[in-house]
Amino acid sequence: MRTLNVELKDRSYSIHIGSGLLSHSKLLTERFKQRRAAVITNETIAQLYLERLVTALGEQGVETVRIIIPDGEAYKNSHTLNAIFDGLIENRCERGTPIIALGGGVVGDIAGFAAAVYQRGVPFFQVPTTLLAQVDSSVGGKTAINHPFGKNMIGAFYQPRAVIADTDTLETLPQRELAAGLAEVIKYGLIRDYAFLNWIEANAERLIGRDPEALAYAIELSCRTKADVVELDEREHGLRAHLNFGHTFGHAIEAGTGYGTWLHGEAVAAGMVLAAQLSQRMGYLSTTDVARISALLTRVGLPIDAPDLGAARYLELMAHDKKVEGGRLQLILLEKLGTAFVTEAPGAALHGVLEQLTVHA
Amino acid sequence: MRTLNVELKDRSYSIHIGSGLLSHSKLLTERFKQRRAAVITNETIAQLYLERLVTALGEQGVETVRIIIPDGEAYKNSHTLNAIFDGLIENRCERGTPIIALGGGVVGDIAGFAAAVYQRGVPFFQVPTTLLAQVDSSVGGKTAINHPFGKNMIGAFYQPRAVIADTDTLETLPQRELAAGLAEVIKYGLIRDYAFLNWIEANAERLIGRDPEALAYAIELSCRTKADVVELDEREHGLRAHLNFGHTFGHAIEAGTGYGTWLHGEAVAAGMVLAAQLSQRMGYLSTTDVARISALLTRVGLPIDAPDLGAARYLELMAHDKKVEGGRLQLILLEKLGTAFVTEAPGAALHGVLEQLTVHA
Repeated sequence: MRTLNVELKDRSYSIHIGSGLLSHSKLLTERFKQRRAAVITNETIAQLYLERLVTALGEQGVETVRIIIPDGEAYKNSHTLNAIFDGLIENRCERGTPIIALGGGVVGDIAGFAAAVYQRGVPFFQVPTTLLAQVDSSVGGKTAINHPFGKNMIGAFYQPRAVIADTDTLETLPQRELAAGLAEVIKYGLIRDYAFLNWIEANAERLIGRDPEALAYAIELSCRTKADVVELDEREHGLRAHLNFGHTFGHAIEAGTGYGTWLHGEAVAAGMVLAAQLSQRMGYLSTTDVARISALLTRVGLPIDAPDLGAARYLELMAHDKKVEGGRLQLILLEKLGTAFVTEAPGAALHGVLEQLTVHA
Repeated sequence: MRTLNVELKDRSYSIHIGSGLLSHSKLLTERFKQRRAAVITNETIAQLYLERLVTALGEQGVETVRIIIPDGEAYKNSHTLNAIFDGLIENRCERGTPIIALGGGVVGDIAGFAAAVYQRGVPFFQVPTTLLAQVDSSVGGKTAINHPFGKNMIGAFYQPRAVIADTDTLETLPQRELAAGLAEVIKYGLIRDYAFLNWIEANAERLIGRDPEALAYAIELSCRTKADVVELDEREHGLRAHLNFGHTFGHAIEAGTGYGTWLHGEAVAAGMVLAAQLSQRMGYLSTTDVARISALLTRVGLPIDAPDLGAARYLELMAHDKKVEGGRLQLILLEKLGTAFVTEAPGAALHGVLEQLTVHA
């Protein structure tokens, strides 16, 4: 088992990564007093892993309230959130009753937001079961639901008390979702760690082949990179925005095609290509750099061509982004491979990148 | 102008109390950078005070987005919250756009919660226009909406950047709401400041007669008392629970009669009498003490007889209270006049207090 500590003063917590951890529920129960816990999961994950977790909690003397939501980003909304509140209240969950999120990014985001605001905050634990959640959404305390006009528009910063990433759960992950998780892994290399980017290029086949060693290393390095950034800037006043590389375009793709059509990681992959192309138009990256990014994404099975929503529609969707300041869109671009920065995008360059989509389509 | 500071490290803020402060919008604008702000208010307050605030903000070069919600506790729910989100998004409010709550406790609670979770948190300012809001809900950072099964069940701790209490706004306050605010003023005397309780008894007629001096003094002392408690225990791990004296019974009254039938302060008044009676049954207060509390509440025009919902219904409603721990209800009682404490309520004494309501009804 690999253990990382995220240092956030009184909100510090540990991330445990390894095989068989779902059954090591003591990693959870040693951190709460109550003998009842609510597990929030989705229909798919419930069939695969809920009993294993419930049994392990039961062995520690902890009774489980089960709240099962539909599977998919399309359900990360206020309707599902209210259903979670109803379940918590009907089962008399109290201010001290822990909420455990068992599932991918959607489950973690919505369960985390429910934990942040139910009775003004209850203890929260993450048991991520997808690569995306293990390397990204379970680290850093961002929780949220979507609004029809924007992804993650309503949410809170709320840190878990612990994260348990059982790498065995990746065995049942569909290949498409594994690739989606690798989009975020590649992102960490691109924005902050050129050596890691080289390692990913050298080990891409091991990763998509689910070599346990390679995956555990990639998860650990991704979590460490994200934790470093979050420790320096928990509330996203500056540096943390770098983690959104590819995401402003990606969110527009997800919203513009209807949430759930593109997986989040797929949209981020195509979004990273757009951000890289913009970085090139502004004189930072070379065409070789952009081609190298596209090639790596393609090798792990990710899309690199964003859908042609029309430049106007992209700009409209991006104007709702949380990175808008004083009416001006802030974008995360690459200064070079391994180094990100924040900038306002010049209109002509931005239009150029978006309008070429029509040419390619 | 009286100014109090609430010391909460990086979440510290000032409360300004005085006449004519609505027009001193510099107290607000000097604390934000953006040239746009969203004002959330209700239909009643909009007619009385919105233009004054908008004009004052305009003189400081700040453009206002107006979001007007229906008036009343019955609207402090997820439906109204979603309407606020729609308004914020349609008007392209950003992560840096301040939200200003102009109104009473309901407006402050729901606007504060919206500010806490819109884009994971935007700058928040309170301009309370009722006595209740000026002495209670605008201090301490509790924000929330109601759930059909429980008051303030969904919310967040979120501190304002500043609070501006313009005592002129109390001139238009209906007498019933003035009295409801005095319930909380009296509460501060009962739980923490026997000398203040004596002062209120000596000045009750000045308070209900809206003597500006007396009101300003009562507001300042109430805010100071609440700020002292919140500074010691922001997240309600212990001491802060004392501020809920009368509230567990009061919330049951509000929920059991339908939100909006009893004003919050009225329900708290009758709830404080129940809590005092329970304190007496458990051997803490004398019958004289209880009579003294009832007499003071009656003098300022507050109800002292809780509705007869039936003991079973009370217990059911109270079981949903946030003060439940390990299935056991924690109540705030009085050790003596001026001193509160937290205890589990013995079943027989609690039943006795609730069953006498039938006898009296």
